[in-house]
This record gives sequence, structure tokens and C-alpha cells, in this order.
Amino acid sequence: MAAMAERPSPEYDVVGLGCCCWDLVGIVEHYPGPDDKQPLLELIQQGGGLVATATVTVTRLGGKACFIGRVGDDEWGAKTRQSLVAEGVSVAGLQVMEGHTSQVAICIAHGTGGQRTIMYKYGSWPLMEAGDVPRRLVVSGKVLLLDLHHPRAALQAARWAQQAGIPTVVDIERPGPHVDELLALADYPVVPERFACRYGGSDDLGLAARRFLDLHPRALVVTQGERGCTAFVDDQVIYQPAFPVQPLVDTTGAGDVFHGAFAYGLALGYDLPYNLRFAAAVAALKCRKLGGRAGIPTMNEVLRLLDGT
Amino acid sequence: MAAMAERPSPEYDVVGLGCCCWDLVGIVEHYPGPDDKQPLLELIQQGGGLVATATVTVTRLGGKACFIGRVGDDEWGAKTRQSLVAEGVSVAGLQVMEGHTSQVAICIAHGTGGQRTIMYKYGSWPLMEAGDVPRRLVVSGKVLLLDLHHPRAALQAARWAQQAGIPTVVDIERPGPHVDELLALADYPVVPERFACRYGGSDDLGLAARRFLDLHPRALVVTQGERGCTAFVDDQVIYQPAFPVQPLVDTTGAGDVFHGAFAYGLALGYDLPYNLRFAAAVAALKCRKLGGRAGIPTMNEVLRLLDGT
Repeated sequence: MAAMAERPSPEYDVVGLGCCCWDLVGIVEHYPGPDDKQPLLELIQQGGGLVATATVTVTRLGGKACFIGRVGDDEWGAKTRQSLVAEGVSVAGLQVMEGHTSQVAICIAHGTGGQRTIMYKYGSWPLMEAGDVPRRLVVSGKVLLLDLHHPRAALQAARWAQQAGIPTVVDIERPGPHVDELLALADYPVVPERFACRYGGSDDLGLAARRFLDLHPRALVVTQGERGCTAFVDDQVIYQPAFPVQPLVDTTGAGDVFHGAFAYGLALGYDLPYNLRFAAAVAALKCRKLGGRAGIPTMNEVLRLLDGT
Repeated sequence: MAAMAERPSPEYDVVGLGCCCWDLVGIVEHYPGPDDKQPLLELIQQGGGLVATATVTVTRLGGKACFIGRVGDDEWGAKTRQSLVAEGVSVAGLQVMEGHTSQVAICIAHGTGGQRTIMYKYGSWPLMEAGDVPRRLVVSGKVLLLDLHHPRAALQAARWAQQAGIPTVVDIERPGPHVDELLALADYPVVPERFACRYGGSDDLGLAARRFLDLHPRALVVTQGERGCTAFVDDQVIYQPAFPVQPLVDTTGAGDVFHGAFAYGLALGYDLPYNLRFAAAVAALKCRKLGGRAGIPTMNEVLRLLDGT
């Protein structure tokens, strides 16, 4: 922790490095078959992407956040950038790549259980490398949040955070290059159950968690959709049920929002059981509205939900 | 035909009244299941809509066209309008509806056979009524092209065209209000086989065609996708096979383009057998590119295809 004492007081609650994206989000009553023509009940567009939506969650809740990532210099990129600026997220680390296209996703919400189909197009820019990561920004936050969109850049950032004594929350959805290395550096891997079981090599979540705990994180957090989430710390298991949502409109981005809230809770000094409850409440409230960001609540809305239960 | 002699020489080859739309068009390798996350190989946006794309076909082929319809005053509406202006289609009849949203469609192309799934959101504006149709524009073309998007406006336009001796091409995809009345006024109903059989009450296309011919059009034209098209005139049947397309990228809008080419061919005075061949060639060439409009050919490209066969 010596390194931590040396750095200036943190500028941000959460600094995030990873995916940002422009989302086109529609609702259909029933998901159309492959040769169908069906009406959309609604169609909106808004910013998305794992870490980007997580940083918006931080500012919506009243915190300070900075985003590091890449967009192209096209229409979608300009909108993606503006969606962060409008939410008060610092884009000091957002690199606008000349002559490149941006990441875009089509999200189709359908059914009554929050199901959604996602189709995404990657940006045409090259991935960020270790040398592209601004160290000053990485160490200017109380908490670092990473996804695997730019894996080598994420690894570099995790190393700098470790040296500076900054806890790192890592969002990993699927196996891929550098997953082992990144998990070894993560203080809080926060992963969906499907990935936890796959990576942990067992359908028994408790058994699967051991493979993560062997890497000595402070805690492994597993998100389980409508069933809630479970944290594993040494030999302890903490289960947090999901908050019921009425109306359940769209689960798009619920995981991203959970990550943002969890990282912000760490920055606020919440203990693990309360932080799980806090992040679960924030993620649940998000699902009231269509799209990844529209429903992200303010701190007052979260406290009302937490106090009411 | 007395009325025809009274009007000034036509300003446009084709005047179209009906649907215009903004299309978000993606390609996936396989159509995703209801809870999947899948990459898009490509994602583009371009103008679409039955009659709007048909009028763009006319100008791309070297003719003059005017579009009558509605958009909202939102971002999609501005793009829809601009997509017509950029192609040289007159927007003298395009009404920009204040405070309303525009029609947008998500088109997902997939598979190797030109399959596509379409999800669409109607504009929030009210439909055009008979009183909203500018008579001067309707009678300023050599040919009138209608779809059923604004059914009562389409009926009024068809009546004016009939009085002025202007032939009317009608694009009807499915049963709906005012279909009977509009078909009774249509000189050339150009309809997909599925609708022809459904409306005609028989899976035998020849039998189904009789119900249309009882209304005394100059010809009934039935589009049959990859199998081509068939025209019925009195007791005559003219079959035109489709032109093979390499590569077959996307059939979105192929029907709209067929209608535009057919209407323009009428304006140019082509006889029915040649006009079927012409429209089939134009529609086939369209399918080389993604989206409803990108692949619409120039007259030279069409003539090369027609001369080569």
C-alpha cells in the first residue's frame, strides 16, 4: 500500500477501460422468425457497451467517472462520445480513431421475461495496446473497472492499478485471450454464472468458484440474472437475491450496470454484503426502461428501494 | 382520354405516393436465436420504403420522379428526406410532420438464399387523407405509383390519375382496408405471389389471377422472387424467369425496385413483355449489394445484362 500513499488524491471514483458502443434498441411482441416481417413496438438509440454503461452508472449515482476506450470518427462514434459527455463521464481517455467505424449493436427485447437478442458490429480500429493506455488516468481513480474489449491494454492497466494499490473490478463474459492473466490480477472478478461454471469447469457453482479463488481475489462475484448474485470469499458464500422489478421492460445492460454500481460501492467504502445488495438494487431498477442506460437510477431511487425492503 | 390532352406535358416520368422509411440493414451469418448474441458482418443505414425506393429506382435509371408521403421532424426523417434529395427525387410532395417520429426499419439479411427478417416502427404522424394529396403533383407524371401506406390518400390519387388518363401501378403486399377499391382503380396491380393467391382465393395462380382480371386492369403482374414474375392479360399469360444474380447479397427492396423499374418502363413506352424483362433485370442487379437501394443499377448496367442474355 506504500504506492497508494504516494499518489495524489483520486480524481475519480471509478476509472473504466473497455467497450463503448452505440445501441439501437427495439421491442417486439414476439421475436420474429428468420423470414418474418414484424412491427417494432418501440425503437430507441442510446449509448451502450460494458464499461461505458458502467461508468454512466457511476455518474448517475452521483459519483465521478472517467472512460478509456476507442470510437471511430463516424456518426455512431460521435453519438457514443456525446452519450458519455451528456452523463458527466470524463472522455479524457476516449480515443477518436480517424478513418474508422465505431462499434454498434442492435438489441431486440422481446417476451415478458426480459429476453433479448443482440447483434453487434465491432469498430474497424485496431485494439488498444499496452502502449496506448494513459497511466495517469488509470491511477487517478479509487477503483479501476475493466472488460476484455482491449485485452492487452486491460492487462497493462491492471498492472498499474496493482502497483498503485487500486482495487480492480473485472467484467469477463466469455473465455478469450489473456483471461487467465487478467483474472490473476483482478481483486474482484464479477462474472455471469454461465462463464463462472465454464471457466471453473463445473456445473456446481461452489466447485467452479474454487478455480477463481485459487487466484486469490478479494472476492469472486457471480451474477445470476433474475436469481440474484453470489459472492465467494475464502470459505464464505454470500447470496443476494434479485430485487423484483415491475414492470420488467428490458434486461439489456443489467450486468453492465451491476458492475458500475459494484465498483462505485467499493469507492464509497461499502462492505461486501451491502455492496452486493446495493448493486443488485441498481441493476434491478435499470430494467424498468428500454435500453441499457435509460433506466439507470439516481442514488435517491436506490435508497428508496433499499429502505423499502 | 380527353382529360389527358388537357393537362400540360408531364413534369415527371413517375410520381409515387406511399411509404418512405429509414432502414438499418445488417448481415449475420446465421439468424440469431431469441436469446443469442451474435456478430454483424456488416451494418449500414440507408433510405427505404416501398414507393420511396421505387422512385429512387426511376432516377437511378435516368428518369424523373417525385415522391409524395410523410416523415416526422426527427433525425430519421431528415435522413429519409435527404436520401431522396441526394438521388434527385423531387420531395415537393414530402410532408415533414412537426413533433412526430418517422418510420424506421431494422432489416437483418442472413443465409445464402437472400433471406431477411424485417422489424419496422411506424411513424407517429396521422395517415394522409384524401384532402392531404396535392392534385397538381399527382397529375404531373406519366405514370402514378401507389402503395397502401396511406390508403385513403392513395385512393384519391388513383381517382385523379384515372380522370387524367394516367396509368396507375399499385403495389399491394397484404390484405387491408381499401384494397378492393384501389385494385378496382389500378391499371397494373403488381403484387407478390403470396398475396395474389390469398386475395384470389386459390393456390393455383392462374385461378387466383381471375379475381384480379374481373376488375379489368390492363395487366396483373405477379412477382415470384427467385422464380421471376408472371403477367396475366385477358387470357394471355407471360412468364419471365428471374435473372441469376452473383453474388446474391440481399433481396431487401427487390420488390420495390421491380415496381419502380416497371413504372418507369411504362413511362418509356416499353411493351409488356419487354417491360417485365426490364424490371426483372433491374431487380436482380439490386440484389448484388446490401440494403434496398445501394445496388439499384444505372440504365447502362441494365442494358449490359439484357444484351448479354
